[in-house]
Amino acid sequence: MSSHVQKWGHAPPKLLTATLLPISFTLIIHPLLPLLPLPNRILSPPPTFPALQASVGFALLAFVGAVHVVPRVSQAFVDKGLRGRDLCKPGGRVTGPWVPECLGLPIACWYIGLMMMFIPFPFSHIFSARDTDSSVGREAFPQTELTLYLSSLLSLLTATLLGFIDDLFDIRWRHKLPIPLVAAVPTLLVYYAEGGLTSVVLPGAVSSWIRSIGLDWGEAGKNVVDLGPIYYIYLLLLPTFTTNSINILAGINGVEALQALIIALSIALNDVLYLPIWPHAFLTRLGFGNPHEGRLLEWAAGEVVKRHLLSLYFVLPLAGVCAGFLWHNWYPARAFPGDTLCYFAGMAFSAVAIQGHYTKTLILFFIPQIFNFVLSVPQLFGLVDCPRHRLPLYDSKSDLLRPSLVHFEKPPPLKTKITLETLALLGLVHLERSNPSASRSDDPPLTRSKRINGSIPSTDQPATTTTHIVSSTNLTILNFLLVHCGPLHEQTLCLLVGAIQIACSGLAFGIRYGLGSLVYGGDRR
Amino acid sequence: MSSHVQKWGHAPPKLLTATLLPISFTLIIHPLLPLLPLPNRILSPPPTFPALQASVGFALLAFVGAVHVVPRVSQAFVDKGLRGRDLCKPGGRVTGPWVPECLGLPIACWYIGLMMMFIPFPFSHIFSARDTDSSVGREAFPQTELTLYLSSLLSLLTATLLGFIDDLFDIRWRHKLPIPLVAAVPTLLVYYAEGGLTSVVLPGAVSSWIRSIGLDWGEAGKNVVDLGPIYYIYLLLLPTFTTNSINILAGINGVEALQALIIALSIALNDVLYLPIWPHAFLTRLGFGNPHEGRLLEWAAGEVVKRHLLSLYFVLPLAGVCAGFLWHNWYPARAFPGDTLCYFAGMAFSAVAIQGHYTKTLILFFIPQIFNFVLSVPQLFGLVDCPRHRLPLYDSKSDLLRPSLVHFEKPPPLKTKITLETLALLGLVHLERSNPSASRSDDPPLTRSKRINGSIPSTDQPATTTTHIVSSTNLTILNFLLVHCGPLHEQTLCLLVGAIQIACSGLAFGIRYGLGSLVYGGDRR
Repeated sequence: MSSHVQKWGHAPPKLLTATLLPISFTLIIHPLLPLLPLPNRILSPPPTFPALQASVGFALLAFVGAVHVVPRVSQAFVDKGLRGRDLCKPGGRVTGPWVPECLGLPIACWYIGLMMMFIPFPFSHIFSARDTDSSVGREAFPQTELTLYLSSLLSLLTATLLGFIDDLFDIRWRHKLPIPLVAAVPTLLVYYAEGGLTSVVLPGAVSSWIRSIGLDWGEAGKNVVDLGPIYYIYLLLLPTFTTNSINILAGINGVEALQALIIALSIALNDVLYLPIWPHAFLTRLGFGNPHEGRLLEWAAGEVVKRHLLSLYFVLPLAGVCAGFLWHNWYPARAFPGDTLCYFAGMAFSAVAIQGHYTKTLILFFIPQIFNFVLSVPQLFGLVDCPRHRLPLYDSKSDLLRPSLVHFEKPPPLKTKITLETLALLGLVHLERSNPSASRSDDPPLTRSKRINGSIPSTDQPATTTTHIVSSTNLTILNFLLVHCGPLHEQTLCLLVGAIQIACSGLAFGIRYGLGSLVYGGDRR
Repeated sequence: MSSHVQKWGHAPPKLLTATLLPISFTLIIHPLLPLLPLPNRILSPPPTFPALQASVGFALLAFVGAVHVVPRVSQAFVDKGLRGRDLCKPGGRVTGPWVPECLGLPIACWYIGLMMMFIPFPFSHIFSARDTDSSVGREAFPQTELTLYLSSLLSLLTATLLGFIDDLFDIRWRHKLPIPLVAAVPTLLVYYAEGGLTSVVLPGAVSSWIRSIGLDWGEAGKNVVDLGPIYYIYLLLLPTFTTNSINILAGINGVEALQALIIALSIALNDVLYLPIWPHAFLTRLGFGNPHEGRLLEWAAGEVVKRHLLSLYFVLPLAGVCAGFLWHNWYPARAFPGDTLCYFAGMAFSAVAIQGHYTKTLILFFIPQIFNFVLSVPQLFGLVDCPRHRLPLYDSKSDLLRPSLVHFEKPPPLKTKITLETLALLGLVHLERSNPSASRSDDPPLTRSKRINGSIPSTDQPATTTTHIVSSTNLTILNFLLVHCGPLHEQTLCLLVGAIQIACSGLAFGIRYGLGSLVYGGDRR
């Protein structure tokens, strides 16, 4: 077994494991102590949020388990052909090192197993209620929260299974698209069952503009607009966006898991802000608790706190497994996540945001992914040629990454040209143009004859097309960063993406609690 | 695509598909019509059990989908190495025909996808309730039933994922054992949340015997005994039993799917008996509705009807997919189920029985599996040698199956001898014994020298051991049937197992509603 540990995965941190395990078990067992028939005097006072404390314990356990499970199962994955060459290493596609693929699967299984074991904790007050009066215990059971929890788990499990099937069988693009949609069905049905909110709050200015043009949606005098079924379409698209946007911001060691980790931590931080542990002044400054908007009233009812606690139960262990996986996926990667991890993590983010009613805040945490997606649109939709891999190019001499290029043998069509020139103007791509006279003499005969046989005869072209675009950098955030920050080491590039993700999360908090209170007033969900 | 259909799987039935599809859609869409803004006069009266009607539609759809999905995905499975040789065909292990393996996976995915799409139907009365008053609609939402439904789906999905992982990675026995336990956790937690019944009804005689020896469990004057946590252990063991007992009654074409189909139909029949559509006299004869036992009261409350409806929603489409899979798994098999199907079907049976509070009735439907398991115990627990495969032996000359044998080179130890002789006495195995003088001269030199070097010198043995057991038929129900019914064709043997399963279901109904009312009185759950 130890030889596998050496061969596959980085060596697990022994000291950290030995430190975290006892802490984790203490955090998990402590809330259970009042259930035991122990004399009261030897019990410490029960924690304020017993399930949350256990959740922190589960998060640590999630980390430790993830760190240890990856090396143990890697051999089995490699034996089944689930391995890929690390393209950004010496040798690349041909002789680059083999790395086990799809290790998102054990990670997701470990996470879901933990989440199942966690079920009794948020619902454990029935244990004590039962002892005194069984009918009270039954009525007090938080049925609704359990339903939310189960439906989220169901969505997660579906995403994991379908993600793994995708990794294994390489499902075609058009069959793949409905995967997050199907996986989201349980979550959405429960959202509906819950009396699902379908209204959004508009900024004051937009709201008065809509009213001024005669449309009068929603309640008069309020900025709330009920979108009805349109809101469900938005909620269906959300998982498609969260899963795929992580999936396309990929290609270098550690970058998928790092994004997922930072997003999970950002969500957790946002959730913690809603817990009733902060002094009032601090919250008012953040834009919370504007009394005349009824915010505090809703708060007092505990509804919002409950939702954000439920969200924390999901994202804390998620952050744990992502960090644990990152241990092995970090440069030089000893494990690849596969689509499984992206589907699984993306679905988890969507599910908790839908259940927690903070989908718009969630989208704010995806700023780098949105940027990457928008930048990719011309290639995804065929406006610009899209090669099989768009990940950066490895330069074995300097051990650095350079932007990868898409080459144009023939001068690209007008729509491509306009797109690329616009992007170049915005500094998003770097274009290489041909010098017509030089190119004609330098071109190998084959290319030249091709060009002459092509649709563009060179003699009667207008002057502007004599210099045409020969190549462009691929349209991803990774290549964009390499264009501007020069050749970078793989690890540096990953750290840079992480830093940008963190900065964007900071920006998201600014928008949500700074700009948001200006634009929306205090009336937000 | 059509060449795959020819190569993998039997050709799907075109006429049957064309007949079933419109019926299925009609059944599914009919309950939805009142939701549309249509004038009342063009609507036929709504069905009594709208969701049940839709469920029948889903069952037909499940069949049609399963028949069509298997040939389409077979190639992908074969490409990934998920294939096995059909051992009971000419060529057997060496040149037997390749058959795609693990096709329980698409079957399970199709089933679970349908069950997710079905979610709105049992809960669709909220659609109409909503329109009039949203708060009423929200309160009337059958939260508890949804929780039961979701937890069962979660258990099913877990069983499917773990079953597939098992098929793919060949998990070791000791790691495999907890799979059904983990998969059962969501179901059991919800059972507990539901106020889970932990009491059993004892037969009158046993109950008075217990009281006579001084133990006094449960309420006085009643035969109900509260087992508490022990009942949960029983519920945890149930999925382990249902999944593995189907898994070990395997080895010939069609037998796993046929068992699952017959058990599903038996459960459905039992559920239908609980629907309030039967004349009273018929029910009284069956042992239902004994008024002084409060049975009718419970019935009137609709609790029992609801539970059995929920069970029907699960088993009808399950029967559909099993029948659809059987189409391809029937002799000569063009698809193998893998462990996935056994885990998935076994878990489904357990989940519906636990949620429906009829676990004991369920066990009655597993009589052939129990027989097979008990018969297998000596081989499973090492009392008798257990070869890798215990499936019957194929005789290529006659194209018939003969019982497979376990050979003993050395005279078997005493415990094995006693076990086998007892089983032979009961007619469960066929033993071959050596004629000592003949065997000594016929043995090839290598075997003889082995025996002489072995621990049992033949000279100083008592007279009884001079004829020792040379071989025994393997301890499975299939070999048992072959011992008694002579060599059989593979298809005949499968039909025989099916016939026995049906006969045992008849016996189960007899025990449940005939013998049961004699032993228990009317007070059963």
